[in-house]
Amino acid sequence: MSAQPLVLICYDLLTPLRGAIAAQGYEVALSWELPPERKPEVRAIVHAGEAVLTPDFLLSLPNLRLIANVSAGYDGVDVPWCRAHGIEVTHSDGLNADDVADHALGLLVGGWRNIVAGDRTVRADAWNNHARLSPGPGLKGRKLGVMGLGHIGEAVAVRAEAFGMEVAWWGPNRKPAARWPRAESLLALAQDSDILVVACRADASNAKAVSAEVIAAVGPAGMIVNVARGSILDEDALIAALKSGTLGRAGLDVFAVEPAPAARWADVPNTVLTPHSAGGTTNSLPLMVGQTFENLRRHFAGEPLASPVAA
Amino acid sequence: MSAQPLVLICYDLLTPLRGAIAAQGYEVALSWELPPERKPEVRAIVHAGEAVLTPDFLLSLPNLRLIANVSAGYDGVDVPWCRAHGIEVTHSDGLNADDVADHALGLLVGGWRNIVAGDRTVRADAWNNHARLSPGPGLKGRKLGVMGLGHIGEAVAVRAEAFGMEVAWWGPNRKPAARWPRAESLLALAQDSDILVVACRADASNAKAVSAEVIAAVGPAGMIVNVARGSILDEDALIAALKSGTLGRAGLDVFAVEPAPAARWADVPNTVLTPHSAGGTTNSLPLMVGQTFENLRRHFAGEPLASPVAA
Repeated sequence: MSAQPLVLICYDLLTPLRGAIAAQGYEVALSWELPPERKPEVRAIVHAGEAVLTPDFLLSLPNLRLIANVSAGYDGVDVPWCRAHGIEVTHSDGLNADDVADHALGLLVGGWRNIVAGDRTVRADAWNNHARLSPGPGLKGRKLGVMGLGHIGEAVAVRAEAFGMEVAWWGPNRKPAARWPRAESLLALAQDSDILVVACRADASNAKAVSAEVIAAVGPAGMIVNVARGSILDEDALIAALKSGTLGRAGLDVFAVEPAPAARWADVPNTVLTPHSAGGTTNSLPLMVGQTFENLRRHFAGEPLASPVAA
Repeated sequence: MSAQPLVLICYDLLTPLRGAIAAQGYEVALSWELPPERKPEVRAIVHAGEAVLTPDFLLSLPNLRLIANVSAGYDGVDVPWCRAHGIEVTHSDGLNADDVADHALGLLVGGWRNIVAGDRTVRADAWNNHARLSPGPGLKGRKLGVMGLGHIGEAVAVRAEAFGMEVAWWGPNRKPAARWPRAESLLALAQDSDILVVACRADASNAKAVSAEVIAAVGPAGMIVNVARGSILDEDALIAALKSGTLGRAGLDVFAVEPAPAARWADVPNTVLTPHSAGGTTNSLPLMVGQTFENLRRHFAGEPLASPVAA
């Protein structure tokens, strides 16, 4: 092994962090450039959670002991498998919740109040004053359902209340300290919501949990906002519902496949689509990178990790 | 005069209200169809404030005694002149403040967090993951300046605080009960704001008050949101500042000329433009129309008006 621990980047999104990681005192390699004979030198991976690390690939790195995610999510990492193979996993814990919640509200208001569509109208010289007398509903008094009341879900709820919305939530675990009522199930939440915001962590238990039935329960006058992961939502069912009008609107920052192919969405009405940009701003990204580096430092110093993923 | 008082519509935007006004027990005419010999029969106008009613036109209606605006604004009506000529003016008072404030936040978040631009990116198949590592600032901790702390300005401030923004305001009148600090001047507010939201009533005193100097004070990293009236802002100066980069962004629902010509904005960067749609939803529009009808009823019954414009 080299004098400096070898840290691997496996996701091209993170290539720009190469210099910053090196400046912490590590050797940095990109997985797509790493000669096979150096694989035993890899001690840690700096990662972002939505990119999948397969067990086969991880087994090819016999001295890997840490996967440090810059992101809050770690859905591309099989945490129980890693634990069973002596690999610790860390993530950013709550550091970008405000940014993600801001973006969720931007998608929500931007869709519900036709701001994104209105911008297209103005730029197409299609402004028709008469449309002003056949408006849609406002936000005050609407029912907002939050799927997943973690840091992000709470931040969404606080913002939505300032718009006069009535908040409820659902998640698999009771939260006695929560300020908002918990629905009996995701389906019950959807049935009782005008707008459903998906804000939970993605894992095997909630793949396509926002099913055709849940989507239909939100209904023709309703909206679904997803700032979590595309995997949580049955995207084919969502597209069919938007096309048939059984779902009113959607605001999506995350997709089943990313980058989302434009052709897939070209004829899907009443959508606001952003390129997985909710989670990073100059407020939060330096904090997230900093926490990642602190996890690396503690790992190599033999100290307890700063933000391991929850057991 | 006919048995039913004759109520005039002078603004084609309001033509769809014709039946509803008639159902209140009035005869309704459209000004562009009214034979000149019937002008003396006109007793009231149902109006929306941004359309100009000239003194010449009003003088041609010798028995006009009321202009009842469905809108909150009444900038197209010269109120002192009307008072001097025995014409009362009413408007909607605070009924759509939540809707306008929601829309202001939609423009703000939609611009600041690149939601409208991001939607274009996805639809153009131009999603570039690397852009995710060179993000802009978040909203938490940003300074929001509100020009005009009326019903709308307050509703904007309450929402902005839920996003973790720091709120200040300026208006010509002190408000001892205000929860947020008042700047010494509009220019001082702009100098100390990351985002300036124009939320005041338009009148002769504030025409182009958001001048080239105020715009420059908001600055290259700043944003101006206008949900009030286009007249309050020097639009030529705003466009020049956006093109040269001396202003960062703008979110506009109102324009110097409406409908806004698309060509005027085609090469102006970093803008979100909506077709004067902030103020009307199915929450607020029925309330606004209802208050207008109540003002008509009280006027013809000789009762005090429900919502006269402030003296």
